[in-house]
Amino acid sequence: MIVHEGQIIGRGHNRRVQKGSAILHGEMDAFENAGRRDASVYQEATLYTTLSPCSMCSGAILLYGIPRVIVGENKTFMGEEELLRSRGVAVEVLQDAECIALMEAFIANSPKLWNEDIGEPADA
Amino acid sequence: MIVHEGQIIGRGHNRRVQKGSAILHGEMDAFENAGRRDASVYQEATLYTTLSPCSMCSGAILLYGIPRVIVGENKTFMGEEELLRSRGVAVEVLQDAECIALMEAFIANSPKLWNEDIGEPADA
Repeated sequence: MIVHEGQIIGRGHNRRVQKGSAILHGEMDAFENAGRRDASVYQEATLYTTLSPCSMCSGAILLYGIPRVIVGENKTFMGEEELLRSRGVAVEVLQDAECIALMEAFIANSPKLWNEDIGEPADA
Repeated sequence: MIVHEGQIIGRGHNRRVQKGSAILHGEMDAFENAGRRDASVYQEATLYTTLSPCSMCSGAILLYGIPRVIVGENKTFMGEEELLRSRGVAVEVLQDAECIALMEAFIANSPKLWNEDIGEPADA
């Protein structure tokens, strides 16, 4: 979810299955749903995400100069938080119990899909 | 363009305008057109791109473990080649005159679109 001036400008969900997509992680879907925006919007926006953002989603955050990212949890997967911080992005990790439970249940129930999500072999 | 075992598995073009997309750089479009693939495919694939890949596209390359990237040119824009190399990706830059001329003409003719492409203000 991307928020600008207190308004949600783009919601997103992982739509890999729904759209047969290789790139629509939740964060990417939020960028897509926010539409083509001027840099000035991105540069004052905050991105909220359930899980620590992977390298692709972190790269999109860097491309658009999103200055602040609120992460639900990074216990089930550690994304590129260090890279983001090294480039000046403020990354806050909530370690929210609900986000952790959500991700743990998804990973336990759909291990192949999860592996695909993070670029690992299906049977890893 | 993504190539696996001598076959093109995904072609791509920048479709920001055509699809009203904020994420479809040429490389992302190639991933999308290649479809959902097993990690074993990505990990033996080569990505060919006209221009040095931005942080978003480089992040996708890292997510999927693409081991080799052939870049047409990096004179008009320097992407995240250093980050890619630091993560073990082989990046070859051709400095191809046709790619440079193509990018120079696009940037000269469509400066606002180009700025949007690289996350800069339209009037930068």
